[in-house]
Amino acid sequence: MNTVNLAEARAIISAAEAKAAEIGQPMNIAVVDSGGNLVSHVRMDGAWLGSIDISINKAFTSRAFDIQTKDLGDNAQPNQQFYGIHASNHGRIMIFAGGIPLSRDGQVVGAIGVSGGSGEQDQTVAEDGAAAL
Amino acid sequence: MNTVNLAEARAIISAAEAKAAEIGQPMNIAVVDSGGNLVSHVRMDGAWLGSIDISINKAFTSRAFDIQTKDLGDNAQPNQQFYGIHASNHGRIMIFAGGIPLSRDGQVVGAIGVSGGSGEQDQTVAEDGAAAL
Amino acid sequence: MNTVNLAEARAIISAAEAKAAEIGQPMNIAVVDSGGNLVSHVRMDGAWLGSIDISINKAFTSRAFDIQTKDLGDNAQPNQQFYGIHASNHGRIMIFAGGIPLSRDGQVVGAIGVSGGSGEQDQTVAEDGAAAL
Amino acid sequence: MNTVNLAEARAIISAAEAKAAEIGQPMNIAVVDSGGNLVSHVRMDGAWLGSIDISINKAFTSRAFDIQTKDLGDNAQPNQQFYGIHASNHGRIMIFAGGIPLSRDGQVVGAIGVSGGSGEQDQTVAEDGAAAL
Repeated sequence: MNTVNLAEARAIISAAEAKAAEIGQPMNIAVVDSGGNLVSHVRMDGAWLGSIDISINKAFTSRAFDIQTKDLGDNAQPNQQFYGIHASNHGRIMIFAGGIPLSRDGQVVGAIGVSGGSGEQDQTVAEDGAAAL
Repeated sequence: MNTVNLAEARAIISAAEAKAAEIGQPMNIAVVDSGGNLVSHVRMDGAWLGSIDISINKAFTSRAFDIQTKDLGDNAQPNQQFYGIHASNHGRIMIFAGGIPLSRDGQVVGAIGVSGGSGEQDQTVAEDGAAAL
Repeated sequence: MNTVNLAEARAIISAAEAKAAEIGQPMNIAVVDSGGNLVSHVRMDGAWLGSIDISINKAFTSRAFDIQTKDLGDNAQPNQQFYGIHASNHGRIMIFAGGIPLSRDGQVVGAIGVSGGSGEQDQTVAEDGAAAL
Repeated sequence: MNTVNLAEARAIISAAEAKAAEIGQPMNIAVVDSGGNLVSHVRMDGAWLGSIDISINKAFTSRAFDIQTKDLGDNAQPNQQFYGIHASNHGRIMIFAGGIPLSRDGQVVGAIGVSGGSGEQDQTVAEDGAAAL
């Protein structure tokens, strides 16, 4: 199966952590595989407790729909085509920035989810993580 | 461990109760510790049943993100950066006024959550509770 | 409505706390009203985190069936008449010692739930709490 | 605050992974802090998907009751004092081997949870992890 493995997840998380440290914002960082299942999670010291669940589910959401959570979010606002999608999947759908699909050879092989700062910070850190694959 | 203990939680709740009595609005009042776990809860006679859960989860939310729930709420409206966050953490995220982090020596050591009246009333009562630490 | 009020719940919790202190085992103590809804909860310093939920739900269970949880437990073992009842009510049914109905004038007006030690310790503390009504 | 931090969690997970590799059984390994909240999780390549949740919740359970999950399990069998405890805490209580509290200076500062093999394998791997603190 074409999926990220643990070594790759660690490299992705490590790159994300480096960016979080650089911007001075501790983060929760999670990577899921092509099945949407958690490969690894890290909570940096001092990062928000409420972001454990959010980071894991941003990663899940990005793989679940093969989309960045910020783009899904644009479609999930009131009066948009996917408004209400956050009520599905038993509360696992996150519709704000910080989740990015991981691709290889044109295939989505997993996703990264980051939570712990502003939407912009989460997105920046997730991008650096994703770029490490 | 830097966290509120039961004696402190009781003093906080007592101050909140006094304010609730003063404004004539019975309240549910809850305090969580630095791990987000409930230390104590009180439902004043005549306070809303639905506010039991809300008071506990406002306190959880304030500690989970080290923020007042009314400020989180501002960021959680449609088209704002955290819209949809109320779907995370298994329904425990409250995004309206009444939750306030409790700080000591510059560290968040717990939180108070109040529910039972208008947003303004909840906030006022929570502020008096938080000030008692 | 014939139900415990907050002042009574506090007296019940206070008596339970005194017993817990006497036996040297910190406890979670909860009281629900005649509607099965939480009136007050206290976690003594050092008491188990997992017992927050259990104490509240022992109280709920005792009022839900007007029975001590240890007696319900006897009926809920494999091959007994209520085996499987712990799967009902969304995980709120506790079938081991520590929950006791609170009665006045021959009517159940609420319940106490205690969790934090052995079954025998929980029961002893709950009995002292219930006796304070 | 007296709790495991991320660097310690990683050292614990690393020791557990080494043992899992030695016995040839891929595992899910999780560490929670003193508040019962996840610090880090790792799923080794090929480890069971169903064990993601179990490893995290074994760690939660061990901190929630400051006990090894196998010892809690002994007390949670039919006709034992805590039978039915697995229905509490919204399905987060695991009552079989693989969860161990992490202690420092006589205080529980977190817990490790391991899932992916037999009860004996999970326990062995968790013990090696816990010993690394």
